[in-house]
Amino acid sequence: MRKLRAGILGATGMVGQRFIELLESHPQFQITALAASDRSQGKSYEEACKWRLAGEMPAFVRSLTLQPPAPPLECDLVFSSLPGDVAREAEESFARAGYPVISNSSAFRMDADVPLLIPEVNHQHLDLLDAQRQRFNTGGYIVTNPNCSTIMVALALAPLHAEFGVRAVVVTTMQALSGAGYPGVASLDILDNVLPLIEGEEEKIESETRKILGRKAGNQIEDALMKVSAQCNRVNVADGHMASIRIQLEKSAQVEDVRQALAAFTSLPQELGLYSAPERPILVTRERDRPQPRLDRDAGKGMSVTIGRLKEDSVLDYSFVALSHNTIRGAAGAAILNAELLIASERLQPAGQRL
Amino acid sequence: MRKLRAGILGATGMVGQRFIELLESHPQFQITALAASDRSQGKSYEEACKWRLAGEMPAFVRSLTLQPPAPPLECDLVFSSLPGDVAREAEESFARAGYPVISNSSAFRMDADVPLLIPEVNHQHLDLLDAQRQRFNTGGYIVTNPNCSTIMVALALAPLHAEFGVRAVVVTTMQALSGAGYPGVASLDILDNVLPLIEGEEEKIESETRKILGRKAGNQIEDALMKVSAQCNRVNVADGHMASIRIQLEKSAQVEDVRQALAAFTSLPQELGLYSAPERPILVTRERDRPQPRLDRDAGKGMSVTIGRLKEDSVLDYSFVALSHNTIRGAAGAAILNAELLIASERLQPAGQRL
Amino acid sequence: MRKLRAGILGATGMVGQRFIELLESHPQFQITALAASDRSQGKSYEEACKWRLAGEMPAFVRSLTLQPPAPPLECDLVFSSLPGDVAREAEESFARAGYPVISNSSAFRMDADVPLLIPEVNHQHLDLLDAQRQRFNTGGYIVTNPNCSTIMVALALAPLHAEFGVRAVVVTTMQALSGAGYPGVASLDILDNVLPLIEGEEEKIESETRKILGRKAGNQIEDALMKVSAQCNRVNVADGHMASIRIQLEKSAQVEDVRQALAAFTSLPQELGLYSAPERPILVTRERDRPQPRLDRDAGKGMSVTIGRLKEDSVLDYSFVALSHNTIRGAAGAAILNAELLIASERLQPAGQRL
Amino acid sequence: MRKLRAGILGATGMVGQRFIELLESHPQFQITALAASDRSQGKSYEEACKWRLAGEMPAFVRSLTLQPPAPPLECDLVFSSLPGDVAREAEESFARAGYPVISNSSAFRMDADVPLLIPEVNHQHLDLLDAQRQRFNTGGYIVTNPNCSTIMVALALAPLHAEFGVRAVVVTTMQALSGAGYPGVASLDILDNVLPLIEGEEEKIESETRKILGRKAGNQIEDALMKVSAQCNRVNVADGHMASIRIQLEKSAQVEDVRQALAAFTSLPQELGLYSAPERPILVTRERDRPQPRLDRDAGKGMSVTIGRLKEDSVLDYSFVALSHNTIRGAAGAAILNAELLIASERLQPAGQRL
Repeated sequence: MRKLRAGILGATGMVGQRFIELLESHPQFQITALAASDRSQGKSYEEACKWRLAGEMPAFVRSLTLQPPAPPLECDLVFSSLPGDVAREAEESFARAGYPVISNSSAFRMDADVPLLIPEVNHQHLDLLDAQRQRFNTGGYIVTNPNCSTIMVALALAPLHAEFGVRAVVVTTMQALSGAGYPGVASLDILDNVLPLIEGEEEKIESETRKILGRKAGNQIEDALMKVSAQCNRVNVADGHMASIRIQLEKSAQVEDVRQALAAFTSLPQELGLYSAPERPILVTRERDRPQPRLDRDAGKGMSVTIGRLKEDSVLDYSFVALSHNTIRGAAGAAILNAELLIASERLQPAGQRL
Repeated sequence: MRKLRAGILGATGMVGQRFIELLESHPQFQITALAASDRSQGKSYEEACKWRLAGEMPAFVRSLTLQPPAPPLECDLVFSSLPGDVAREAEESFARAGYPVISNSSAFRMDADVPLLIPEVNHQHLDLLDAQRQRFNTGGYIVTNPNCSTIMVALALAPLHAEFGVRAVVVTTMQALSGAGYPGVASLDILDNVLPLIEGEEEKIESETRKILGRKAGNQIEDALMKVSAQCNRVNVADGHMASIRIQLEKSAQVEDVRQALAAFTSLPQELGLYSAPERPILVTRERDRPQPRLDRDAGKGMSVTIGRLKEDSVLDYSFVALSHNTIRGAAGAAILNAELLIASERLQPAGQRL
Repeated sequence: MRKLRAGILGATGMVGQRFIELLESHPQFQITALAASDRSQGKSYEEACKWRLAGEMPAFVRSLTLQPPAPPLECDLVFSSLPGDVAREAEESFARAGYPVISNSSAFRMDADVPLLIPEVNHQHLDLLDAQRQRFNTGGYIVTNPNCSTIMVALALAPLHAEFGVRAVVVTTMQALSGAGYPGVASLDILDNVLPLIEGEEEKIESETRKILGRKAGNQIEDALMKVSAQCNRVNVADGHMASIRIQLEKSAQVEDVRQALAAFTSLPQELGLYSAPERPILVTRERDRPQPRLDRDAGKGMSVTIGRLKEDSVLDYSFVALSHNTIRGAAGAAILNAELLIASERLQPAGQRL
Repeated sequence: MRKLRAGILGATGMVGQRFIELLESHPQFQITALAASDRSQGKSYEEACKWRLAGEMPAFVRSLTLQPPAPPLECDLVFSSLPGDVAREAEESFARAGYPVISNSSAFRMDADVPLLIPEVNHQHLDLLDAQRQRFNTGGYIVTNPNCSTIMVALALAPLHAEFGVRAVVVTTMQALSGAGYPGVASLDILDNVLPLIEGEEEKIESETRKILGRKAGNQIEDALMKVSAQCNRVNVADGHMASIRIQLEKSAQVEDVRQALAAFTSLPQELGLYSAPERPILVTRERDRPQPRLDRDAGKGMSVTIGRLKEDSVLDYSFVALSHNTIRGAAGAAILNAELLIASERLQPAGQRL
């Protein structure tokens, strides 16, 4: 198959830059269009964008001209990391114009006919696309990935929920700076400090987790019945969200059963050998003092969740610590893995072959 | 009353330095002896100790000679922040020799006849001293203050437990570097990182909290029945331990009742006007994004706990965030406040007047 | 004398907040008006401003209404820390309207009839005010203090230039985040990083230093002939600019002569006992590994420059390291000391007594 | 050629770990022996060593047993990063026993018959080995690489010294934490801080630079006549030493000539295509605010020096900022490149073929 032509909406932001980095040598996609919602439209990417990832801005995007985030764009699909306020209108306009929209934005995540997808966890939810595509009736559609913290939580819960049932989960996050975008958190606010408020984050974790782990009932998703409590903090870490997690299970389980369920977990993306799928979605570390953001965020090329410190809890049943890379598995990498699954399930083709 | 002569055991460490800083102009104590367990014995404090707090080493301690942590010392009482491994023997030897030992070390905290004291919370536990003094029979005794995180947790819980009963508490800490002493945490371990393990800390919070909030039954303390779960993390902050806390109450309460119970809390040290007692042991902040370590750790001269983000929790009943200065309210300031209460309750006098 | 009524221009910024903190209990000034150039006009200070210094926003400013930075304001003088782009017009309009303007902004620093004042260094330059006041002819005038790094450099050079003549100075700075204001430097830009560019800073140090150390010739300042080279870097420090400095002298001097000249330096503000004048403008530390920003920035209540590591240099003559608090001695404190000198020299009176 | 068997002396330290990381898939070397000077001897590497680089400890070293740093070792050559105090004896004993010693330690750097080698700069100095090998008379010898900051300075100066002559160089460093090894700098010393003293570093830069850029005269190196001044600071950065540099040239040069000389520089390792040689030893960045440690330390896989902010200087002739990875180009990578040059120049063979 020839490569699909991808447009990036929100190309100058932190997640936009990760899309470009991750797609630079991807076998299935090539970036053919860049769009941004700000004043940079009309400039070349090189002029408009300050590259903030390690190394140099990839050569292939330097001369691409930034366009407004509205159709038409010269591409077969769009990856979107538009800011919340413009995403809703822009993404819907692309879907209406026939483009698959693979979105990292929060705008449509909780819509009833929009899959909130983690390929290892709820690939069955892709069936929602049937209803959605009827609604748009152009071949276009919207698939979203969860909030950066939620992905980590839901991935960690998935095998436990399947095997033991999760009745309640208590999540306390310590989140990285890149999660706030750029310029994001002021240095004076975070040096020698922790911030106990991330606007909207706790609500997203609590609601999205239950949708992701919910089950399809007809054309709908019934939220999982588990209770979810989130307290979110920002810490002085560049990349890598970490969470102290406690869970209460429906069935009793030994700690070794829990460990085994986590460590042995693989799913459809691993079976299909999707390009961005890590060999192990969940790594259970043997080290007593891991996971740590700086040492573990790049595990599985940033696509694995690392879990450690699993033990019995004196209020709920078990506690552990989880960590994953918030702009790879938690954002750009998540969207790309979603797109890879859409190709594998024959829902994504070159534009000429659509509908 | 003339000032009591105080000896500092562990004088060169982080907490030892805080003792010196806080006692420099204290109206009731003057430092007359310094002791350390390491190779610095026999040297002047100026030679032996690298001063690590802001500003210069106070002039009055520069020429004091460091002595071994064993009686006799030229003083009426000792403040101890000896490391755990030497504290047990050293502190007991001072108590046996007739010295009141006001200890920040963990060695004796859980002993049955040793008060684990927070003056605002469990001053009744001082009655344990009767039994203890009989045991030593020299006028000497040991009073301890809790672990630096536990003090914050127990102070926050005290008014809630009194008013509503606390059935369960779930604590996730983000602790400062000074809690690990000096040199403590290597910079390469914490830059751009979080550490999910602090040896022994979770166990201390879980056990000490229940003793502190326990009730005296005869000559004993019956642990409070509440369940306590702690997960402890180290973050890149110099001073100021922070915790995300959830609680489950025995009686139902409105959020405003909870807020009011916290904000209105004062206790015996405030009534007695103890020198180091903050006007308000608990400050409930109006700001949505507080407490923060850098902005709030010095509240009440480091002796107040600041609480914010109080709201209903979807798994337990309420959640909030607490913060306090770990080497002031959490260590040296705690011990000094304990000693002030001992004076006020006529359990601490100049050596000549003892027994 | 009753207190002079002071207005603060740029009251919501980092330096504006320092003005408020430092003037809260100042014996000669009381803040009666606040102004800001941004959208906060018309709001109360409490509504408009997020307090970013430790502790709580002082109560006395909470209810003051933010006004536009244009006369008239209810005050006898204005302290200004307006951003460069609005300062030139605003400050001149106040001077024209008869207000003494004590400015920390860069707008007028290099104007021929505007003193660029460090009271310990060039109080003679205040004579420039005669010409300037004729120009405005309203009793108003503008006095500026130097750039935050320049103050430190010029203070360190002053006694050496007076005694030995400084032919050349090579300055490499490591500057704190608060120098960039708020939000200023993005946390993602400075975590685990150093920034080698601070816009305009090197030019300011090179030109301002020569004006400050210049001598009055008639109604003008002749720049000092010394060569000044500056390379400026931003480091991950909240407050406290540090500089590695080399100097070449005109007269030969022993290292002890140089040390003595620095350590013994006092000047007019110390003789006059100005309220904000530190006992020693320059502290020469005995510690081999000082000065350090966190330990030394508050020396002399933030008004002393700390110097260490003085030794012979193999390219120029001597090298040393200097440090001072960039928003106190380097900004708000500098302006306040200037105003104190203006009072002492009878150039600043209550508005009713002016002209 | 089959791979040479390499022993690592000082295998558990920060540089030792970099050796292992860089040699894991090296085409010319395989690690067959590990040695350490501390209490870890006799343990497996996995037991003895806490892996501190990103990712997991490479599998191939886990079960190797740590040996004392003394011959015999099962290998054809040794790479050494022993601490200074043990390096002198240990390295000499290996050379006497017939082993080529490729050392990153400072012990022998300034010895008259020991090459202080940067392959791009002074490969001619390898001729010193003739004399040295006669002295040892076993086929063994010692080759050293410079101090981590010096390598960067000398590489930057090399093309300028060759083309214009460098009369004087003034270096102010901002050095990374990994340069101090592990545990190295205490976190409490560097958070919100800069340290103005690195023991011995300034002397090393001043003396080593002149040896490296010196010329061979008979069997000796005559130090370059240039004056070198170094002031060294430690900043809160994990990896990547940065320096603000001024130079005075013997011949006059336009700024574009200087830029061109830097940017065009390549040397023998590039001609020979040595495995670890970067395509460009010096990268001259186009960005105004670069180099920066976090963004540029990995340039050329950590083997390129990045230079920016080149401009005329008002005291010397030119100033610029340089950056390189201190544990790759500045330590382990430097030693490995030295070894590659020794193979290419037929001075390094399997042990059976030596002498």
